[in-house]
Amino acid sequence: MKGIPPATVQRLPIYLRCLSDYAGQTISSENLAQLARVNSAKVRKDLSFLGSYGTRGVGYDVDHLVYQISRELGLTKDWAVCIVGMGNLGSALARYRGFPDRGFAIMGLFDSDPRKVGKKVGSREIESLARFKRVVKDRDLSIGVITTPAGSAQEVADRMVAAGITSILNFAPAVLKVPDGIDVRRVDLSTELQICSFYLARSVADRAG
Amino acid sequence: MKGIPPATVQRLPIYLRCLSDYAGQTISSENLAQLARVNSAKVRKDLSFLGSYGTRGVGYDVDHLVYQISRELGLTKDWAVCIVGMGNLGSALARYRGFPDRGFAIMGLFDSDPRKVGKKVGSREIESLARFKRVVKDRDLSIGVITTPAGSAQEVADRMVAAGITSILNFAPAVLKVPDGIDVRRVDLSTELQICSFYLARSVADRAG
Repeated sequence: MKGIPPATVQRLPIYLRCLSDYAGQTISSENLAQLARVNSAKVRKDLSFLGSYGTRGVGYDVDHLVYQISRELGLTKDWAVCIVGMGNLGSALARYRGFPDRGFAIMGLFDSDPRKVGKKVGSREIESLARFKRVVKDRDLSIGVITTPAGSAQEVADRMVAAGITSILNFAPAVLKVPDGIDVRRVDLSTELQICSFYLARSVADRAG
Repeated sequence: MKGIPPATVQRLPIYLRCLSDYAGQTISSENLAQLARVNSAKVRKDLSFLGSYGTRGVGYDVDHLVYQISRELGLTKDWAVCIVGMGNLGSALARYRGFPDRGFAIMGLFDSDPRKVGKKVGSREIESLARFKRVVKDRDLSIGVITTPAGSAQEVADRMVAAGITSILNFAPAVLKVPDGIDVRRVDLSTELQICSFYLARSVADRAG
């Protein structure tokens, strides 16, 4: 199970997203490949790492596949997540339905601005960063999401590491230095726009040519 | 140039993000592979589609590579982008520095709520959806970003298609029906959290075992 290649891990959430519209159905590797925009041999190879091979002429049972991918991604247990930096993006993520739907429970919202502390976002109050370490311990928070401006991101990451968080998702446009053993993922919200751009540039060239 | 596989296209923005911290330097395919979490043979293959082969023992010239990837992704011209749905997420995207940095000019912000129309987000005023079609034409908007609640997303997509937009980035948790020839990409903000979860589940299992 530990031998799943990182590139396959990166695709599993994409398969999961594509499959969400096909609950209760079966799906062929070709169809899933088209939805996920990879080739079907790769889909079959990826899913074989989960011990899933589908049925010839029928395809994969979607509900079972969703269960297998979810289990592999560790989504069958809930993870407690905190968000630090309650500007627009932090607030949007705090309210984002896709998180609880995927097993991510938002259990802490933090900001260093005393004017924000005590205000509610959804059903949860924003707390002061001064309480961060204690809250992480008390609520057993596992994943820290950084949505501060770039200039504060390193300080927040240091605080997360000191509090015992080992998995950090960074939306701030900053490179973070963390000790070995801490998993930092940087999210670039313009990634998908760049893919739009690729296809758009080609269709404009086609029309022109 | 049109023969670049979709899977490679998906990785180009990731390379670009990784390279942004190495301006003016050279980078080996191994190093870039590690940063992008793919294997180095794949990196070399992907970059060969751009006609970029690196220098043995030296690696790739980062600035040149950034230029080549940007050109390939159509990022060397600015695209005019509009955002429809000015809640927290729309507002966050409207202010997101990563968009103009990558050549995406936010040229229109729209909401159907008359209480939001006329308010400023950053330096731009929110406009009424009633003006949408005219604005798309006047400002030559190419890409539409949907950040409405799920229930309004289809209606907004229909409006975008009617206005002549052919590339849609959908942040709403909804499946959109669009005519052939319209490129819709759905962004799931929980994708990266799911990858966090994968590695976290394994490290928890390691510590327990």
